[in-house]
Amino acid sequence: MAIKVIEIGENLLKENDKIAEQNRKLLAEKKIKSFNVMGSPGSGKTTILLRTIEELKNKYSCGIIEGDIAGTFDSKKFERFNIPVTQINTGGACHLDAYMVKKGLNSLPLEEIDLLFIENVGNLVCPAEFKLGLGRNIVISSITEGEDKPAKYPLMFSISKICLLNKIDIAVHLDFNIATFKKYLLRVSPEIKLINLSARTGENLQEWIDQVDKQK
Amino acid sequence: MAIKVIEIGENLLKENDKIAEQNRKLLAEKKIKSFNVMGSPGSGKTTILLRTIEELKNKYSCGIIEGDIAGTFDSKKFERFNIPVTQINTGGACHLDAYMVKKGLNSLPLEEIDLLFIENVGNLVCPAEFKLGLGRNIVISSITEGEDKPAKYPLMFSISKICLLNKIDIAVHLDFNIATFKKYLLRVSPEIKLINLSARTGENLQEWIDQVDKQK
Repeated sequence: MAIKVIEIGENLLKENDKIAEQNRKLLAEKKIKSFNVMGSPGSGKTTILLRTIEELKNKYSCGIIEGDIAGTFDSKKFERFNIPVTQINTGGACHLDAYMVKKGLNSLPLEEIDLLFIENVGNLVCPAEFKLGLGRNIVISSITEGEDKPAKYPLMFSISKICLLNKIDIAVHLDFNIATFKKYLLRVSPEIKLINLSARTGENLQEWIDQVDKQK
Repeated sequence: MAIKVIEIGENLLKENDKIAEQNRKLLAEKKIKSFNVMGSPGSGKTTILLRTIEELKNKYSCGIIEGDIAGTFDSKKFERFNIPVTQINTGGACHLDAYMVKKGLNSLPLEEIDLLFIENVGNLVCPAEFKLGLGRNIVISSITEGEDKPAKYPLMFSISKICLLNKIDIAVHLDFNIATFKKYLLRVSPEIKLINLSARTGENLQEWIDQVDKQK
C-alpha cells in the first residue's frame, strides 16, 4: 500500500514568510534597526540584552519584544529602563513566528523606536525555521553547552550574521576549546562574525555593541 | 512604562482542543482504538511500533500516522505490512497538532481500520501541549536518557496512561536505576502504568501488547 504524504510545513512556512516580509517592510518604513536574538535556555540572551540596552539607551530609543512560553519573568527585568516592552506568550509553541511578531510590532509605539530587539524562545531548533522579517539574526551560545552545538544545530548558526560565544569568564574552569567551536561554526556558517564575550564581567562586550551600532 | 502582554497560546490551544474533540468523535464513531506515541528522538518509538504491528497484524486491521519534521524515513519501514500509512511532515513544527491529525485521519480508509497508532515527532516537550483527540497517550523513555526525565519533562509523563521504559537489555552496561526513574515518574503521574521492556530483544513486550489489546 502506498504511503500517503501530507506536507504541513510547506504551506505553514509559506504563509509565515509572507507575514515576515510585511514585518520587514514595516520596520524599513519606520527606519528601525532590528535584531532577532536566539539561543538555548540559559545561554545568556536576557543578560546580554540588559547590558546592551544599558550601553545604548542614551544613543537610541530602544524597544523590546520578549518571547516566552509563559510568564513575564524576563520582560520585567527591562522595566527599569522605562522603554516599551511587549511580552509574547506563545503557550504551546517553542518559537516565535512572523504572525506573533506582527502582533508584537502592532503593540509597540514604532514611531518612537529606532532600535528593536526580539528575544526569541530559548530553543536551538525551531526558532531558526521561522523567518520573522527582522534585520539581523543573532545566535548566542555559551561555553557551558559544549563545542559541538554548531555541528548539531547547523540551521540556527547558518542563518545568523553574528554568533556571541558567552560566559568566557569561566573558560578556565571548563574543558572548552574555542578553536574547536570556531571550526564547527565556520563549517556551517563561513561568513558569520564570532564574538567571544562575557555578559557577566562585560569582557569584550564593546565589540558586540559596535556591531549593533554599525548595522543599518 | 507598563509591559504589554500578548497571549498567543490561549487561542491557539483553544482552537486546537476544538479540533481534537472532532477527532475524538470521529474515532469513536468509527470504533477505532487509537494511541498517540510520544518520546525523545531515539527512544525507540518506531521499533516498538514495528514489533507491535508484527504481533497484532493478524488480530487487528492496523493503520499508522507517522509525524516527522521531514522525510518518509520511518513510514517506509511499515511498508512490508501492507497497511495504510500516512506520513505527516510538519516542516517547521516540532510536534503534531490536532489539525494535522485531522488531515491525517481524512487521508486514511477509516472504515477498514480498527487499531491506529500515531507516532509523534521526537520531542519530550511540545507534543504534550497539543491534544490530538486519540484514545491513549503513550510515552516512551529509554534508559540511555537518564532517570530524571519525568522530573524534567513532567507534562508529557503526567498526560500519559502508559510509560514504556525501553532498552532494558543494555541496563547492565549503564548506571541507570529503575527504582529512581519510577519514583520520579509516579511523583508526576501517580496513575501511570510503567512497563520495562526491550524492543530489541522482545523482553516483556507482551505486557505492552496485552495493554493495547485491553484498551477499549
